[in-house]
Amino acid sequence: MTIESKEQHIPKNQAEGMVKWLASFGQSDHGGVNRLLYSSAWVDAQQALSKMMGSYGLTTHFDSVGNLFGRLEGSDQQAKTILTGSHIDSVVDGGIYDGVYGIIASLLAVEKLQSTYGKPKKSIDVVSLCEEEGSRFPLTFWGSGNITGHYSLEDAHNISDADGIPLLEAMKQAGFDPANYQSPIRNDLACFIELHVEQGIVLDQSRTSLGLVSDIVGQRRFNIKVSGESNHAGTTPMPLRKDAMSIASHLIDYVTTKARESDSDLVATVGKITAKPNTPNVIAGEVNFTLDVRHHQEEMLDQFCNSFQQYAQSVVDDNQMEIDISQWLQAAPVSMTTDLTNLSREVASQKNISFQTLISGAGHDAQVFGSFCPTSLIFVPSENGISHSPKESTKMKDLENGIDVLTDLLYKLAY
Amino acid sequence: MTIESKEQHIPKNQAEGMVKWLASFGQSDHGGVNRLLYSSAWVDAQQALSKMMGSYGLTTHFDSVGNLFGRLEGSDQQAKTILTGSHIDSVVDGGIYDGVYGIIASLLAVEKLQSTYGKPKKSIDVVSLCEEEGSRFPLTFWGSGNITGHYSLEDAHNISDADGIPLLEAMKQAGFDPANYQSPIRNDLACFIELHVEQGIVLDQSRTSLGLVSDIVGQRRFNIKVSGESNHAGTTPMPLRKDAMSIASHLIDYVTTKARESDSDLVATVGKITAKPNTPNVIAGEVNFTLDVRHHQEEMLDQFCNSFQQYAQSVVDDNQMEIDISQWLQAAPVSMTTDLTNLSREVASQKNISFQTLISGAGHDAQVFGSFCPTSLIFVPSENGISHSPKESTKMKDLENGIDVLTDLLYKLAY
Repeated sequence: MTIESKEQHIPKNQAEGMVKWLASFGQSDHGGVNRLLYSSAWVDAQQALSKMMGSYGLTTHFDSVGNLFGRLEGSDQQAKTILTGSHIDSVVDGGIYDGVYGIIASLLAVEKLQSTYGKPKKSIDVVSLCEEEGSRFPLTFWGSGNITGHYSLEDAHNISDADGIPLLEAMKQAGFDPANYQSPIRNDLACFIELHVEQGIVLDQSRTSLGLVSDIVGQRRFNIKVSGESNHAGTTPMPLRKDAMSIASHLIDYVTTKARESDSDLVATVGKITAKPNTPNVIAGEVNFTLDVRHHQEEMLDQFCNSFQQYAQSVVDDNQMEIDISQWLQAAPVSMTTDLTNLSREVASQKNISFQTLISGAGHDAQVFGSFCPTSLIFVPSENGISHSPKESTKMKDLENGIDVLTDLLYKLAY
Repeated sequence: MTIESKEQHIPKNQAEGMVKWLASFGQSDHGGVNRLLYSSAWVDAQQALSKMMGSYGLTTHFDSVGNLFGRLEGSDQQAKTILTGSHIDSVVDGGIYDGVYGIIASLLAVEKLQSTYGKPKKSIDVVSLCEEEGSRFPLTFWGSGNITGHYSLEDAHNISDADGIPLLEAMKQAGFDPANYQSPIRNDLACFIELHVEQGIVLDQSRTSLGLVSDIVGQRRFNIKVSGESNHAGTTPMPLRKDAMSIASHLIDYVTTKARESDSDLVATVGKITAKPNTPNVIAGEVNFTLDVRHHQEEMLDQFCNSFQQYAQSVVDDNQMEIDISQWLQAAPVSMTTDLTNLSREVASQKNISFQTLISGAGHDAQVFGSFCPTSLIFVPSENGISHSPKESTKMKDLENGIDVLTDLLYKLAY
């Protein structure tokens, strides 16, 4: 029995309404969201979601780091579990759809399947992953990382937020005492399916409703410090200067220009910069800046980053200055599972929903799961490509299309 | 009668001791000085200096903006007054010699002349200028500017410090009620002589005790804003970016490189930069940076700055972005009075003190006086060129040489 023979359309406004409801936990001044890991807004959101899941007849539980699961028990006790959902945390002053849409979509899809078809063969877990963004503590994917064994409690040591609050302390205050930590690793997973807003401009510009992700880019992130000598802006002749601002800007210009000239899929960004003493009439003695490089092929990342590091070193050497290039994140590219992507393609075709294949330039929990179990990531468009902003938005029709496809996909996998 | 025939050496340590005494008003945590215009440390310092001047038999008075004068009355009532001194204010966490050495040097020179020769023909005013640095309020040379008529009370309107305290209010709280303002313009000045630490590396490297300044550079200072579009660092393809960081860094690299390649006396500095939103994984939508350009010839400044502005505009136009270049300071180069410089040269030669001519790359009160009356600026070395820092320092011998030459110079001018 195919789904199309029954009245399956999600009631209008329900998806959008539920997204807005969940976004009300941690609403920021600009109409966006501040819901950082283990904050009170985060605790409230997870508790409310747990109740909501329960009201849908799902069996809920939290693991040791605060991932929330809502389970629809399947009849085949030997079968592995299908996991579907996204992350509950936000960036500072973020949009309301980022992560939340995926959780709500999975919840509504499972609710629809249950009310239509009852008990599935395979169990389905809707998951609200505790953390993905790295917006409070300097680590990302704390939720999916614990489930897949990439992280364990040891990784939380020596991690504190900008106010000096240790991650372990925050865990405890949020009700997840590290003393009670039991391994959250889920070796019983059949696959992980995630719906997410694109946070890019591609689907919006091509007026396509669905993006079937083939690969998630690998990333390299660096903190770079150029050290020279502070000195008087007026009385220091140019040849005697060790101007960290001059050298740093040369390197930033170089790396962004090189990225533009290289493979069209490669992106490089210097988003953050600080100078010391950062005073108009003093030559900067030190400049710190960040570098974020992404591509879906490891060799391209290697080539680009190595080449930049060599160039940077030669430039500072020529100027008798110093550079410290410190890589703090290396995430390998991850390919999504072709079989699952093909299944989504079938479903979308059957439903006459427009779709295209694309590469995800943003990191997602799907990339952490991708090296652990079969994984699929599906995008819905972001209007004007806006993300990480209160202005983030997706058309209602696209939100619904995503849930329709997810519902059919889960049916094919679980029933 | 020449000075050499009498025992004229300043008692050892007196100059250094008095500099340190005056620096104790507003001592900072790092052993430097925080003595900002109209602060309590500033008031204390001026009051103490006034008493000290009085104890030397000078007739003291404050003008309406807080410039302090200590007068040694001359016998010729028709003659113009010789003004000598420097500024009492400091930068944040500044050195102890900057400005203070000039005041102390003038005081000790006048004290020596008075005790040796009694009443001069021309009156000599030792001046402690109220403000020069621009370290509290966004204006510089408030002291010399009022004396020479470059500023008047109108210029204080709409000026507030970083805490929002209006300049006029601060004046009042320091005991200089704007309601009692009378024009501080001194039309009775014969000349202005200033001793100052070099704040550069030239005298130190050439092991020369005295710098006879021929010109003070002109300056142009700009605030520059490059505007693009914030966007996701991962999902925005390079060709679709309007990356303010990339463009700003290109311009910073360009302007500092061009300066190095141009006339050897030209200096250009980008000391301060801020990016928005200044986040590692977000393309910067806006970057603000400062530009400080100096040279002793107006045409060079014109040529360099115009050329840069044209280039910058073309770059942002090519990238469909925007730039706002706002000049907030334009100070013309000022030549020091040759006759006075020659007189100093004679004196230094007679005393066998090493000297050389140089251009001052830093602004000084002498440049404000320079377009008003005959003016001379004399430097003593800064060890390692360090300035605007608690580590600022000058050898005792050089401090004394400066005072010796100033004493003889004042003798030639006033007696």
